[in-house]
Amino acid sequence: MPLLVMKFGGTSVADLERIRNAADKVRREVERGYDVIVIVSAMSGKTNELVGWVEETSPMFDAREYDAVVSSGENITAGLMSLTLQEMDIPARSWQGWQVPLKTTSVHSAARIEEIPRDNIDAKFAEGMRVAVVAGFQGISPEGRITTLGRGGSDTTAVAFAAAFDAERCDIYTDVDGVYTTDPRISAKARKLDKIALEEMLELASLGAKVLQTRSVELAMRYNVRLRVLSSFEENNENSGTLVCAEEEIMEQNIVSGVAHSRDEAKMTLTSVADRPGIAAAIFGPLAEAGVNVDMIIQNISEDGRTDMTFSCPTNQVERAKAAMQKVKDDGVINYAGLVADTDVAKVSVVGIGMRSHTGVASQMFQALSAEGINIKVISTSEIKISVLVDRKYMELAVQALHDEFGLEKAG
Amino acid sequence: MPLLVMKFGGTSVADLERIRNAADKVRREVERGYDVIVIVSAMSGKTNELVGWVEETSPMFDAREYDAVVSSGENITAGLMSLTLQEMDIPARSWQGWQVPLKTTSVHSAARIEEIPRDNIDAKFAEGMRVAVVAGFQGISPEGRITTLGRGGSDTTAVAFAAAFDAERCDIYTDVDGVYTTDPRISAKARKLDKIALEEMLELASLGAKVLQTRSVELAMRYNVRLRVLSSFEENNENSGTLVCAEEEIMEQNIVSGVAHSRDEAKMTLTSVADRPGIAAAIFGPLAEAGVNVDMIIQNISEDGRTDMTFSCPTNQVERAKAAMQKVKDDGVINYAGLVADTDVAKVSVVGIGMRSHTGVASQMFQALSAEGINIKVISTSEIKISVLVDRKYMELAVQALHDEFGLEKAG
Repeated sequence: MPLLVMKFGGTSVADLERIRNAADKVRREVERGYDVIVIVSAMSGKTNELVGWVEETSPMFDAREYDAVVSSGENITAGLMSLTLQEMDIPARSWQGWQVPLKTTSVHSAARIEEIPRDNIDAKFAEGMRVAVVAGFQGISPEGRITTLGRGGSDTTAVAFAAAFDAERCDIYTDVDGVYTTDPRISAKARKLDKIALEEMLELASLGAKVLQTRSVELAMRYNVRLRVLSSFEENNENSGTLVCAEEEIMEQNIVSGVAHSRDEAKMTLTSVADRPGIAAAIFGPLAEAGVNVDMIIQNISEDGRTDMTFSCPTNQVERAKAAMQKVKDDGVINYAGLVADTDVAKVSVVGIGMRSHTGVASQMFQALSAEGINIKVISTSEIKISVLVDRKYMELAVQALHDEFGLEKAG
Repeated sequence: MPLLVMKFGGTSVADLERIRNAADKVRREVERGYDVIVIVSAMSGKTNELVGWVEETSPMFDAREYDAVVSSGENITAGLMSLTLQEMDIPARSWQGWQVPLKTTSVHSAARIEEIPRDNIDAKFAEGMRVAVVAGFQGISPEGRITTLGRGGSDTTAVAFAAAFDAERCDIYTDVDGVYTTDPRISAKARKLDKIALEEMLELASLGAKVLQTRSVELAMRYNVRLRVLSSFEENNENSGTLVCAEEEIMEQNIVSGVAHSRDEAKMTLTSVADRPGIAAAIFGPLAEAGVNVDMIIQNISEDGRTDMTFSCPTNQVERAKAAMQKVKDDGVINYAGLVADTDVAKVSVVGIGMRSHTGVASQMFQALSAEGINIKVISTSEIKISVLVDRKYMELAVQALHDEFGLEKAG
C-alpha cells in the first residue's frame, strides 16, 4: 500500500478536540488507501512545563535526565492520538522512540538520527495496522537511554521516517497554510507558493522563515523526500499548502522565489587588525571553536598594513565572540584596536534557484535598495541567495521594496 | 554495600519542593553508607489527569495505549528525582520500567511482575552510582509494550525490587507516620504500632486499612521482605514509623494487634434455597466466575428442605452478583425465592497473630459487642482474624468497644 507520513505540531494537538481534528485528517488519508505514519509533538505548553521543572530542579542539568523527562510529552500525545484513531475504527498503535527503535547518537538534547529499522512497524502494517503513531523528537542512544533531537526535532523525525519508509510524501501540518514569498506580517502582498524547491526552502529556513526547521529540510534534500507544508486548521485538498520538492518538479519559476529577513543578526567589527597572510584563520578559527556561527565576512581595504575586519553572527552569540577575540588578543595571536558590536541591524535576503541561470539579480537588488535610500552594510551570496545587512529600521521597507522589485505578488 | 529500597508516593513528590524533601531523606541514607533504589509514583494529580484524558478520548480504551499514556507520570518524577539528587552531588540516574527491564505479564493495566534482572542496575552501582531512581507502577510485556501494574503498583514495585536486590529493608514513605491499632479518625485512643507481623499487615490491608496495598504485603511475605511504613513529612530516625516484619522479630505482642473496618461490604441473602448437597458450589461457582469476591458465607438452619444462604461481597459488585444469580436461576441450576441486598452494613475485624495460641478471643469479641447492644449479622474467621458484619450505624461504636476490650491503647 502507498504510505504517507503526516506530522502534527504542538498547536495542532494542543487539546483532545484538536487531536480529534488531526485524527480526522489522518482518517481521510486512510480512506484514500494510504498506510500512514503519524509523527506527533507534545501538546503545546507541555514541553515548556517539563523544561521549566528540569531547569528549576537543576540549572546545569544532566542532559540524559532532561531527555528522559522532556520526551514524555510526545509519548502522551502518541497514546491519545492512537486511541482517537481506534475510536474511528482505524487500526492504530503508538510507538515511543525506543520501541521503533529510532537509533540516535549519544549527544543528549541534540542527538542525530543514525538509523530507523523498519522491521517492527512493517510487521504491524503486514498484520493490518493502518496507522503507526510515533512520538516525535526522541530516540534511543547506543547506551539504551532516551535521547531528544533538539529544536525542530519532530519535523526531523517526520522526514527521517519518510525517507526510511519510502513515503510518497511527508505532510507537515502546522498553524500556517504554507510557505509565502515573504512574511505576510511585513508585506500584505505576500503570496503563498504552491511549490518551492528544496534548495530554496533550505535557504529560507536557515534565513529565519520559521515554517520548517533547517535540519528537516537538509534531511529531505539528502533523501529526496517530498515535503508538503499545510494548515491543521483548514479543510485541505490535494493542492493545499506548499509542496517542497525537487526543482525538476517545478515547471514555471520566478527568478527569485522569496524574500527572507532576520532580526537576530549582529554586525561585529575588529578595527585596525594587522593585514597579514593567515589573519582570517587566526580570527575565525577561534570563533568557530567558541561556537560562534559566523555568517557574513568582509574585509576593508588595507591602509598602512592594517585593516578592519567585519563579520556577522547571531545576536545572542555577541558576548561569546567578544570573549573569544579577547582571548586571542591576550594570547598575543592577533592584535586589534577595538571590537565594535552593532546589534541594531537586520539581514534581508532574496532566494531563488532561477538565480543560477540569471545574472544581474544582485545589481537589481542593490539598485532597488539604493532607490529607497537604504545603505547596505555587509553582503554575502550563495549560488541561489543574496543577503545584505541593513540598519534594522529599514528592514520592513527593504523587504517590501524587494518583494515589489522581483514581482513576487504574481506567480511566475 | 548494604542496600535500601525507598518508595515515595504521589503526595510525597507532589511538587519540586516535596521532591527535594524526599531527596533529603535519600541523601541521609546514602550518607549512612547505603546504596539506594528509590521507587517513585507520579506527582499527585498527574495520573488522574492522564487517566481523564484517556477516558474522555476512548471510554472503552485499548489498555495498551492507556498504559503507554498513564506511565509517563512516573517517568517525569523519576527524572526530576534523579536531577535533584545529582544537585546534592549524589551519583544518581533514572530508570524507566523497560530500561531495567522490569518484566511483566501482558495483562495491561493489571500486569504481574515476572522478573527483575539485576544486571543493568548492578553494573551502574559497580561504577559508583549510589542511587537508582526507578519509575514505579510500570514494566514491559513480552511483546515489548509498556504495562502498568494496577492499583498499588508502586508499592508492589518497591517490594519486588527489595526482594530482587536482597535489600536490608523496604521503606514506604507516605502521608501517615505508620500503622495504627485502628483508624485514628474513629478512635482517639488509636496507637501507632512500632512493629507488626507481615501476616497481620496482610489481614489489615485486605480489611481496608489503606496504608499498604494488599499485593505488596503478599509479595513481602513471599520473599520475606522487611517493610517499614513512615511519614514523608516528618523527621525520622531508625525507630520511626512501623516495621512490618516476620513474626519472629516481634518479642512482645498483644493477642490482638488491630481493629479494622470497611464500609464497602454488602450483605446478600438468597432466600428459600433448596438445601441439597452441592448447593454451595452451584451458588458460589458462578459468583466466582462472574468476578464477585465473596468474603463471608453463612447458611441458616434448614426448614422443610429449604434454607437461606447469606454472603457478603464488596458493595460495587452487588449488581454483578445479582446478574450471576439471576442467570443460574434462569438456567434452572438452582431455585430460590428472592435475593435481598443489604448495603447498610459494615465489616469490623480484629487481627492478631496471638490469636493462634490464645483461645477465647472470638467469645470475648462477641460479648463486648453484645454489651453495647450491637447485633452481629455474619461472622467469618481465619487463623489470625475474626470479622463480623454489623449495621453500619454501629461501626464506629464497635471499633471503639473492641479497641478498649483488647487494651490496644497500651503496648503489649
